[in-house]
Amino acid sequence: MRQLLIIGGSDAGISAALRAREMDPGVNATVVVADAFPNFSICGLPFYLSGEVPDWHNLAHRTRDEIERQGIELRLESTARVIDPVRKSIQVEDAKGRIESLAYDHLVIATGAVPVRPPITGLDLPGVYLLHTMEDSFRLHEHLTERRPEAALIVGGGYIGLEMADALRRRGLQITLVEMAEAVLPATVEVGLGRVIEDEVHRHGVDIVKQVAIESIESKGSRLAVSGSQGFLKTVDLVLVSVGVRPASEMAAAAGIDTGVRGAIRVSREMATNVADIYAAGDCVETWHRVTKQATYLPLGTTAHKQGRIAGENAVGGHRQFAGSLGTQVVKVFDLAITRTGLREDEARAAGFDPSGSESRVLDHKAYYPGAREIQIRVIGDRRSGRLLGAQMVGDWQAEIAKRIDIFATALFHEMRMDDLSDLDLSYTPPFSSPWDPVIMSAQAWGKARESA
Amino acid sequence: MRQLLIIGGSDAGISAALRAREMDPGVNATVVVADAFPNFSICGLPFYLSGEVPDWHNLAHRTRDEIERQGIELRLESTARVIDPVRKSIQVEDAKGRIESLAYDHLVIATGAVPVRPPITGLDLPGVYLLHTMEDSFRLHEHLTERRPEAALIVGGGYIGLEMADALRRRGLQITLVEMAEAVLPATVEVGLGRVIEDEVHRHGVDIVKQVAIESIESKGSRLAVSGSQGFLKTVDLVLVSVGVRPASEMAAAAGIDTGVRGAIRVSREMATNVADIYAAGDCVETWHRVTKQATYLPLGTTAHKQGRIAGENAVGGHRQFAGSLGTQVVKVFDLAITRTGLREDEARAAGFDPSGSESRVLDHKAYYPGAREIQIRVIGDRRSGRLLGAQMVGDWQAEIAKRIDIFATALFHEMRMDDLSDLDLSYTPPFSSPWDPVIMSAQAWGKARESA
Repeated sequence: MRQLLIIGGSDAGISAALRAREMDPGVNATVVVADAFPNFSICGLPFYLSGEVPDWHNLAHRTRDEIERQGIELRLESTARVIDPVRKSIQVEDAKGRIESLAYDHLVIATGAVPVRPPITGLDLPGVYLLHTMEDSFRLHEHLTERRPEAALIVGGGYIGLEMADALRRRGLQITLVEMAEAVLPATVEVGLGRVIEDEVHRHGVDIVKQVAIESIESKGSRLAVSGSQGFLKTVDLVLVSVGVRPASEMAAAAGIDTGVRGAIRVSREMATNVADIYAAGDCVETWHRVTKQATYLPLGTTAHKQGRIAGENAVGGHRQFAGSLGTQVVKVFDLAITRTGLREDEARAAGFDPSGSESRVLDHKAYYPGAREIQIRVIGDRRSGRLLGAQMVGDWQAEIAKRIDIFATALFHEMRMDDLSDLDLSYTPPFSSPWDPVIMSAQAWGKARESA
Repeated sequence: MRQLLIIGGSDAGISAALRAREMDPGVNATVVVADAFPNFSICGLPFYLSGEVPDWHNLAHRTRDEIERQGIELRLESTARVIDPVRKSIQVEDAKGRIESLAYDHLVIATGAVPVRPPITGLDLPGVYLLHTMEDSFRLHEHLTERRPEAALIVGGGYIGLEMADALRRRGLQITLVEMAEAVLPATVEVGLGRVIEDEVHRHGVDIVKQVAIESIESKGSRLAVSGSQGFLKTVDLVLVSVGVRPASEMAAAAGIDTGVRGAIRVSREMATNVADIYAAGDCVETWHRVTKQATYLPLGTTAHKQGRIAGENAVGGHRQFAGSLGTQVVKVFDLAITRTGLREDEARAAGFDPSGSESRVLDHKAYYPGAREIQIRVIGDRRSGRLLGAQMVGDWQAEIAKRIDIFATALFHEMRMDDLSDLDLSYTPPFSSPWDPVIMSAQAWGKARESA
């Protein structure tokens, strides 16, 4: 019986195992999981920490039983240390420090990412958290529930920073959010929409500090003094650091596997590495971007699931290609949903397009039907080809924004021209939309802005 | 100055006028409107009759002023009677019965549809309504508010019948809904989903009678006795008849313009009729179906807007083609949203496909995040090609179903294979979806059902 080994029990790893067994019920699939929590929804951690999800067990996409019932062997609390592509085996260390060698016919590396440690002194002090593992979350949860901190500082205004600001406000903490860039969510939306998000976050009682780089954290009795550029100084009970992640690719690199953008493992669109019979997927790999047609680093749960599924299929003899990422994302922060797909203007320019953006404010449904809410939509198109390149939306979390970005994402997947979006046959009834959906209206507004330019 | 004449001041007519003026500010655009209510959202009438929209004036997509400010002349309460393609003029009768001749260089016919009058005796009795014009709605509104009827019977379980059942329940009336087919919404969803809708409607206090054909309505004092097949007999205060519409195409046919499916005006994909310089759009025309690649009759407001826009563009020299309808629809009935796009199985079979359907029940977002709701999704694919042919969804009105059908619609627009839906990069965060959105999960379920078949 052929042996498929998978290193990593999160989204990409479990998806690979499930798909491999689905395509070839004759394969042995073993997943090496570093902790005791296979297939957990790490995207759900902020909702556990906020108290909205009282029991962390519910964060499992699937239980251990459900996975094993698919004929998948789980090796929990086992850390892969070395990959030997010549002998086709890996060395695994268990919780007691014992090393064992496991042979493979095919290997999928799904080691994920680790948090970036910014150049701040004092990151290892008690009360400072870089959220990464389930264990980190348990420690923070215990801190929140047992020590009842009153004030927290969050370093980084990306989506995890914002979700955590929301989560800790729900627990009643005073929050200061510090972002180095000129607006929050700089990797997701343009500055103008970032400001809209800041207003919402501030309205919910979060202090926001921008264009400040945190430099050091020091103990002050039971508290933490945080200082940074521009003379920033603030004393709090708790510090969360979330300034992004980097691929966990060292073991792969040591085995002779090529890496690329930001050190991520280089893979073909079949999710194969340069080493025979070794595939890789998820937050540890480069991601092919469907719009730029270039490799980038875009660690997202959705992408990890897709790539894992493809790696699993191909590891048992399939030939499926990864169709590429569009960087589609949504985050809920307080009462706002914030979404984007495709390229920002700066990204589009860097990729050789001639981008132009236009912004619309449109109601989510007919004004006369109760409950209409304004959505802000920014669409980015290519002046030369007229192609849609990206879209960003901000609005009330009940304005069906997440699924509207998916309409853009599906259009972008098919390289539609902005003008052709008016041809899409989208649904309409007054409680849910207008005869031209906001998606189409924003594309039409882009066209009009071009004509008058 | 060239003269563009447009007959009809609803969705298609006004869209044509607006687009013509947008493309060519030098054209004279005159719209002949049979009543005093140009550009009203007739889709909003049920919400006016329910009381949710207190003021009917708010149902205007645009006010008269807004339209005229675009340089469009409105001739209200003027009914076109004759089209003379040789002299290139039309005869118009005003409210006082005066006939005037108006010349055109280009003509757009947007006369819409009229309600089908089923073979029921007594349709003209007081208290019996075939909703069509704004005036009909005013009469019904007056009846509801001044005579306070207690019991109503609705003939027809299509989307207008269901919306009106919802509307009149909100006013406290007892409702009996009578549908000839074996389930409600037979033109929109398969029987199984129709049953789900019936449960919801019944739960809200509406009696449902199926497979009964109403045959006559008789006055019984101030009430109406309604009888039908299977010995059906019921006495109520009010009867609404909504069994569908047919194209208002007689005047066009009398002018030598070809008609086709169900008597609708035959048009090219440029929305041109067979007669030079005469275009037609909206509920009075045949609609090219993007999946079957054949003409059909699909009167929908969204399609009327699209076709009107194209007719207007081409009437001033454009060459835009109608991209085709997918029959995408959504209706809200009590707390349910009901949607579909593309073909039902019977339609697919009739069009020469080899369809197979599969049904999934999926949560709209991760179970652990509060408020997750079940969606029922039926997807229809072609066994031979693996292509997506259609989708239907029923679920809670806040489960973002309308925009999810639009993801299917956008995929269908691009003739995607069911298997390729897994490649779509859709957004995810636990409050809004799952790493595989319900749209993708239902497509994957179709694939699994095929493999095991």
